[in-house]
Amino acid sequence: MFDDRSAAERLGDALESRGETLAVAESCTGGLLGSTITGVPGSSAYFVGGVLAYTDRTKRQLLAVSRESLERHGAVSETVASAMARHVRDETGADWGVSTTGYAGPTTDDPETPVGTVFIGIAYAGRDSTDASEGAAEPFAVVEHHQFDGTREEVKERIVEQAVASLLERV
Amino acid sequence: MFDDRSAAERLGDALESRGETLAVAESCTGGLLGSTITGVPGSSAYFVGGVLAYTDRTKRQLLAVSRESLERHGAVSETVASAMARHVRDETGADWGVSTTGYAGPTTDDPETPVGTVFIGIAYAGRDSTDASEGAAEPFAVVEHHQFDGTREEVKERIVEQAVASLLERV
Repeated sequence: MFDDRSAAERLGDALESRGETLAVAESCTGGLLGSTITGVPGSSAYFVGGVLAYTDRTKRQLLAVSRESLERHGAVSETVASAMARHVRDETGADWGVSTTGYAGPTTDDPETPVGTVFIGIAYAGRDSTDASEGAAEPFAVVEHHQFDGTREEVKERIVEQAVASLLERV
Repeated sequence: MFDDRSAAERLGDALESRGETLAVAESCTGGLLGSTITGVPGSSAYFVGGVLAYTDRTKRQLLAVSRESLERHGAVSETVASAMARHVRDETGADWGVSTTGYAGPTTDDPETPVGTVFIGIAYAGRDSTDASEGAAEPFAVVEHHQFDGTREEVKERIVEQAVASLLERV
């Protein structure tokens, strides 16, 4: 089992101390992010669950991603990552929504996008902790673009590590 | 990483050869079942995704489990496992729906139900392959009750192994 328990534990502590909750919308990681977060005993205090949207159809059905977004930008895109994170947050009522969409390999659907390309979306309603300006309290979603190397399993693990680290930085 | 790749691969081959699809509704496994199924390259041909419903609220919101079922039978019950598997199958349009609900430990919410108790639900619209009678073509859900020993992580892995094996037997 992928061992990033300590980062997942620290994320849990941070969420629990703020009384905030988290939901996931996973594509390429297929459940590994949720499984890692729930590897921590007591995680039901802050982890509500989420959606695994492995196909375009499921992204439309369960996460209300528009056909237009999928057609214009592709499933592995900043636009779709943002929509997934925002929707799962709204749908579940969680404070934070995090999404993953990428190509874990060994092949991609899009010849122009290499294996290991991933977008991680983070949606949150409160003020961005990196934004010191007043009035920045509207819901927002940030999307990170990463490129990872390795086997399919390694790429999935790197994405999960990165998602947990990015959340931890922001919570 | 939990290594039951060969069973997951065999399940994938079985689904793909029948042109059938699968969706998951996970509670106690928190995404490990989806992650194991999507560990197989090309799994998007038969795995559509699903729902992680880690709390009672998410079971109601994302899987339409009734309050009455949760109150009368508890989240870790045959009734709830059946409802989860049937709903995720209907919602996603997959041929098969599989659910997990149990206590991975180290504690339980219910003093009468020991750690390691799990219900695995399997919903399918076709005829049960173990049922040779005519006309048995209505949607059905079967629920298995298991009791596993081990650490939290070991219990999760045993549940996933069992769910894959039980699906493989039926597909």
